[in-house]
Formats: sequence, C-alpha cells, structure tokens
Amino acid sequence: MQMKKLYGGIEAGGTKFVCVVASRPTHIVDEIRFKTTTAEETLSKAIQFFRPFVASGQINAIGVGCFGPLDVIPESSTYGFITVTPKPGWSNTNVLGILRGGLGVKIAFDTDVNVAGLGEYKWGISKGFDPSLYLTIGTGIGGGYIKEGKSLIGLLSPEMGHLRIPHNRELDPFVGNCPFHEDCFEGLASGPAIEKRLGIPGARVPEKDPFWNLEAAYIASALMNYILTLSPKKIVLGGGVMQREFLFPKVRWRVRELLNGYVASKSVVENIEDYIVPPGLGNQSGSLGAIALAMQLDERSHDPRV
Amino acid sequence: MQMKKLYGGIEAGGTKFVCVVASRPTHIVDEIRFKTTTAEETLSKAIQFFRPFVASGQINAIGVGCFGPLDVIPESSTYGFITVTPKPGWSNTNVLGILRGGLGVKIAFDTDVNVAGLGEYKWGISKGFDPSLYLTIGTGIGGGYIKEGKSLIGLLSPEMGHLRIPHNRELDPFVGNCPFHEDCFEGLASGPAIEKRLGIPGARVPEKDPFWNLEAAYIASALMNYILTLSPKKIVLGGGVMQREFLFPKVRWRVRELLNGYVASKSVVENIEDYIVPPGLGNQSGSLGAIALAMQLDERSHDPRV
Repeated sequence: MQMKKLYGGIEAGGTKFVCVVASRPTHIVDEIRFKTTTAEETLSKAIQFFRPFVASGQINAIGVGCFGPLDVIPESSTYGFITVTPKPGWSNTNVLGILRGGLGVKIAFDTDVNVAGLGEYKWGISKGFDPSLYLTIGTGIGGGYIKEGKSLIGLLSPEMGHLRIPHNRELDPFVGNCPFHEDCFEGLASGPAIEKRLGIPGARVPEKDPFWNLEAAYIASALMNYILTLSPKKIVLGGGVMQREFLFPKVRWRVRELLNGYVASKSVVENIEDYIVPPGLGNQSGSLGAIALAMQLDERSHDPRV
Repeated sequence: MQMKKLYGGIEAGGTKFVCVVASRPTHIVDEIRFKTTTAEETLSKAIQFFRPFVASGQINAIGVGCFGPLDVIPESSTYGFITVTPKPGWSNTNVLGILRGGLGVKIAFDTDVNVAGLGEYKWGISKGFDPSLYLTIGTGIGGGYIKEGKSLIGLLSPEMGHLRIPHNRELDPFVGNCPFHEDCFEGLASGPAIEKRLGIPGARVPEKDPFWNLEAAYIASALMNYILTLSPKKIVLGGGVMQREFLFPKVRWRVRELLNGYVASKSVVENIEDYIVPPGLGNQSGSLGAIALAMQLDERSHDPRV
C-alpha cells in the first residue's frame, strides 16, 4: 500500500453535501461544499467533483454517509436508495446507483450517523474505544454504534433517536413533535422540538433558561438506555443542539444520577467527563468517516479471504 | 471433528443449577439439576458431576451461563467473578476460578441471558436470524444480544432490564421496586414488581385482569427501544412472566401500535407473530446455550489464526 493512496468521501446531508478527496485527516487534497437541492443537481455536482480524480486513477473507492431514511441492507432490491423522505424530490432516489453509474468506482454506503461514528472511531475521540456510540442531536436525532470497526446494521439500520423515554407532562406539557411517535426522544429534544416549544431556535435560548435542565434530562434518559443496551466505551454527542457546550456537564451529571451506581465502571462513576464527549473531528466526523469507509472497502477487496 | 464429541454446560441460576453433558439438543448424555445453596456447596456439586467425564477424556471444554451481577471482561482482575449480589454467600465468588481449579479443563463464561440467547441462536428459534435478542422477564429482567454468533459485551455486559420507559402515574401509581432506579422497566414489570403491586404472584392473576394490558404496554415500550437501538431480526421472550402465553399477542399488538409504521420491515409490519416469539428450546435455552458456548471455545482453540 502506498503512503498517499487517496479516497473519496461524501457527507450527503439533507442541508448540504461535503465532498472530499483525502488519505487521512491531515492530508485533504481537495474539498467542496454545496447546498442540497434536487437529487439530480446535487448528485451531478458530486460526480463532477470526483470525476477528474477517478479519470486520473487517483481514487478507486468512495465512501458515502447519507441522510435518510435509507435502505442499507445489501440484500434488498432498493439497497442504496433514500426511501420515503419529506424532502422534496428525494423520495425513492437510487443514490448509490447514480453515483456508481456516474463514476464507475467502488462505492461504500451507510447512514450519515454510522459514518460519522466510524470517522470518530478511526481518527477522532473514539479511537481505541470499541464499541463506541456517536449521537447527533440537531434537526433530527440519530445514533451510530461502531463495534470492531463496523457500524451496527440488523433488520434495518437503527433509528435510536426515536426511543420512548419518560415524559412528565406536568413539568413539560409540550406534546412532542415527532409525526410518528409524538413524544419520543426526537419529538421532545431535537432542535425543531425546542423551537416549537419555546418559539425561538435553541441557539437563541439563553444559557440560564431552566429549559436546558429539561433538555439535559431527556438526553440523559436516552443515554442511560443506550448505555444499558449497547454498553459503549465512549459516547460522542454531535449535532446543532450540542453546540451549546454548557449542556455537556448537565447531561453527564444527570446520567450519573439516573444510573445511581448501577453501571459500576470507572468510566462512568469517576471519569464521566471523558466518557460523554464532543466530537474530536469537529464538523468533519462525517466527511472523514466517509474516507474511512472508502478505505475499508478498498482493504476488504484486497483481502484474500473475500 | 468426531460426530459425538461431548461438551459440558452449566446453567448457573440464582435459584437452581442445571449441568448437562451433550453434543447437541438431541444427544444429551447426562444431566443434573439441584438447588442453588451456598457457593461452595453448589459449585462442588457441579464439579463432582463433571469430574468423571473429564477424567475419562470425554469432555475438554465447559460453557457456563451464570447469574449476576457478573464480571465478564477478560482483562479485569475479577473476570469470572460474581461481584456484589444480595444473594447470601455469593458476593465476590470466583466462579470461573473455582470451576477451572476443580476440573482442569477449558471453561467459557458469560451471563445467563447471553448464553440463553446463544442457545436459541445455535439450535432454537433464532437460528438463522443474525442479530437476535433474547429477553428474560421473570424475577429480574435481562437481555442477551447475539450478533455473528457472539454475545454483545462492551464496557460491561449490557443491563437492558433497567431501561427508562414512560410511566403514567395516574394509570399506574405503583412507584416501582428497583432498588437502583425505582420505576425502570424491571422495577415496573418484573415478577416481583407484579406481586408487590397486586399482592399476589403474577401466576395467580387472572387472564382477564386489566393489569395485563399495562404489563404488555411496559414490555412493548422496552421492546420498541431495543428494536430501534439494536435492530434484531428475532426477539425471544422467556422467563416466568412470559409463561402467561396470552401476553404475546398483547405485546405484539402494542409494539406495532407504538412503532406506528416507523420500522418499515415486513418482519414487524406483517409478520410480527414470527418476530416476537417464545423460546424454541423451552426451559433449555440456558443449558444448551452453555453447550454451544463450550463448542465455540473448543473450535476457537483449534483455529490456526488464534
């Protein structure tokens, strides 16, 4: 393997696309960001960006972390599709097929949160922590669980933002805004839930507003459930809501209070500051994770056992 | 490999121990069941049972599925110990060390629920369903998640019985009986919680008592969270509470209602009767799972890559 072998990575978000060509975080050769418009226009831009690198033989594998809902089951007839999304013009889009057709290289495909989790595990703050969990709390809430370097995919891809958690309606009469489950975790604690409840975006709610204790309590309830179910060695919290850094100590404190000594691990009991943390790669978890995914695909196809 | 190679299996429960010598479910050579008394007496009985098979060279690997709380982290200095348990005389018992010392064979060690899950995956109703989840709802509540033939162990072993779930105190004023978390899933829905709430054991509560709808709703809330987090392809519900078979249709109906179309898989939407099911091995999931665990250990040590 050459030291400078390059890979392509696409962070395909519902708001913006980030495309990178890189070998590792400190060696990013090219990068482009653009708004997500129609499927056709957006995917064409991505293809145009990568085409010269493919044509010159510099890259032969691309990783994609895509917004959803997504079909990530390889056996499925709609593998690589965005399925039914409220985003206009994107329902039933064969993202993987369009990219493969336009570029003619190997492409690995996974959800945005799984890929961000992989990025943090490969190069970020979860490095060396197996298993680990990456959670985004923003426009939506979703999680990627990385075990032995791979994202967890089962019957479908997990949808752990939609967990049922306690909701005290006396304390918080907000009914929740999830169109499927009303007051699930996402319905209570996502960015849009905050804005609908308070009338202003979370970014403009002052730090001392008591609402943040409620928000931290919801996040902590969900984290407790993930800890008890998945037993991760590191939990990374990304996304727009977690930009409010004062939330971290509140969440950690509340997780410890809720667990009440039940998970008798030093990580939780003594060093929770190093257990529940912001992303190590800042806003690049997704795009660099896509590079890591492309590398995995490339290594797998060199594996004589495959 | 010979057709009739034998293995030892121990289902080490807090109430009773089951020890078996077998090659597979249809070839059980010997079996013994006895009450769990003191650690010394109980483990001695198990050792005496297996000793002739070890001495004659018929078995060289034993699997153990043990009640807990348990240290299952191989790197830990108390690996193989029951840690702090309310069960008299069992706290800080080196179960694995005592068995190894008494028998001098290879011993594989995991939690009771992980081993039962493995049994169902190897020979029971989860066979061919990867990943799968085994849940016991009885004196306590616990779950074992099996992926690629291995139980999920992370920072610690999961403790998924203690999930936080919605609890409507108007509908159900019972405060919960978990000494750590009061109204977690186990605190609301385990056998002892039922008995404490109603004054009689669950086994004697009539089928038409409206309480069972509440019980089913708690179980369904927890299942929804496991489905969204772990995405299993099969969910097996064992344990004393689930002996009341009329609970299964109630739970399935409520899971589908709660998910509300969100997990768009045929398994959930159309065939939930085959998705949430009783154990295929009856009350032998644990002891046969222990045989499966011993087989895995034996195969691993023949693996040239190890």
